[in-house]
Amino acid sequence: MNVIKIGGNVLDNPAQLDQFLTDFAFIQGPKVLVHGGGKIASDLSKQLGIEPNMVNGRRITDDDTLRVVTMVYGGLLNKNLVAQLQARGCNSLGLTGADANVIPAHKRPVKDIDYGLVGDVESPEQVNVRFLASLAEQGLTPVFAALTHDGQGSLLNTNADTIASTLAVALSREFEVNLVYCFEKKGVLLDVEDETSVIHHLQPDNYAELKAQGSIFAGMLPKLDNAFAALQAGVNAVIIGHAGEIQTIAAGEKAGTRITL
Amino acid sequence: MNVIKIGGNVLDNPAQLDQFLTDFAFIQGPKVLVHGGGKIASDLSKQLGIEPNMVNGRRITDDDTLRVVTMVYGGLLNKNLVAQLQARGCNSLGLTGADANVIPAHKRPVKDIDYGLVGDVESPEQVNVRFLASLAEQGLTPVFAALTHDGQGSLLNTNADTIASTLAVALSREFEVNLVYCFEKKGVLLDVEDETSVIHHLQPDNYAELKAQGSIFAGMLPKLDNAFAALQAGVNAVIIGHAGEIQTIAAGEKAGTRITL
Repeated sequence: MNVIKIGGNVLDNPAQLDQFLTDFAFIQGPKVLVHGGGKIASDLSKQLGIEPNMVNGRRITDDDTLRVVTMVYGGLLNKNLVAQLQARGCNSLGLTGADANVIPAHKRPVKDIDYGLVGDVESPEQVNVRFLASLAEQGLTPVFAALTHDGQGSLLNTNADTIASTLAVALSREFEVNLVYCFEKKGVLLDVEDETSVIHHLQPDNYAELKAQGSIFAGMLPKLDNAFAALQAGVNAVIIGHAGEIQTIAAGEKAGTRITL
Repeated sequence: MNVIKIGGNVLDNPAQLDQFLTDFAFIQGPKVLVHGGGKIASDLSKQLGIEPNMVNGRRITDDDTLRVVTMVYGGLLNKNLVAQLQARGCNSLGLTGADANVIPAHKRPVKDIDYGLVGDVESPEQVNVRFLASLAEQGLTPVFAALTHDGQGSLLNTNADTIASTLAVALSREFEVNLVYCFEKKGVLLDVEDETSVIHHLQPDNYAELKAQGSIFAGMLPKLDNAFAALQAGVNAVIIGHAGEIQTIAAGEKAGTRITL
């Protein structure tokens, strides 16, 4: 099973998104799509005169902002992705973590900062894998918007990378799962300016080495640490690569950065 | 199985909606909820400066209007209804007709008026009953937003009453289905000014008689004609009643107007 997260840059580019969905529809075997959509939500916020409230570069989700992300992630983007996959013969359905209680979460506890209506997912053991397995048996492809819920009636804005890794870990109980992060680069680069400097394979040994040498862009480190955590928790492989190479990646062929234990 | 459609007046009234969802969560046996949300969509349209385009009292769905109803019906209302049902122990999931290709439709053909991106559903035979039955087997309650799709990548704005009756007819192949329309009156009234004048039972004979006498409010006639069509197509009973009486109605007890053959 492939759990594939598409980044905002793909969602914002109609031609790239079109090609990505065509490629995604062709991927054989069970698959899951996860998306965010921050830029489109920001555009709607501006149109509605809702001032973004940023603290330390992170967006605070107040009531109005939650309304906007629920409309944009859960409605506009999610349902259009489903309609476009249906047109490509991929029988999909759109979900949030609230639907079928797939991803229970809780409001992030307030320490220094109150992020507002932001969800931290419960452990992957809490994910409703039985429901996801029944969808896979019926040949249905779930498309997840980056929302969860607290079980008390409130939706929660939730990081799409976290949703993807939580689902991948949970599904590893029943499937051999590859977790794929698609973005605008060809993989993890040794030199961010040089698209040909893709690191093809990362394992704990060479990761530690490259990290110690300072050869990996600092911004990638949290993503890679999370990738290794997902592998430790049962995911078969994590692949970071370009959205345009999704078919090659999903076929297990050489593309992007493949991360394994 | 109960297929229950809630009218806009319930969605617009937080206290009434709260009580309705509590009552709905308690209904035993398989059930389906269908909602629209026109007034909230109109409010968002106004905020975004989208001029409603009304022809003969009906809204034309252009691209911008479809975006708004996708956000409001498919996102804001649908996902919040799901989160609130989850909080009441009712394991639900939100769907449109595009999800799992449950309700295929086509853009309404242009005769005198081009309604724009408005869907006419294909026949109930095209409904994905297998998927809905699998949800019922898992104890999951689908919550439908008033959207379908054309199979070519476009979502379509679709009348919520039509979605409810299409689902009810289709599900009659596998279940004994009651179709319930909840609104702000206690049922079909002999005198629209008198809430105590509820007609408790309508059958073809007394319906024809009351119609001939002009005793039924003209605005109800299309709804009632549709109700009899649903019965002819296999639905067990259609009940029109007040949202506050949903438990009584769902239990098959005397409330609202019960329509049968």
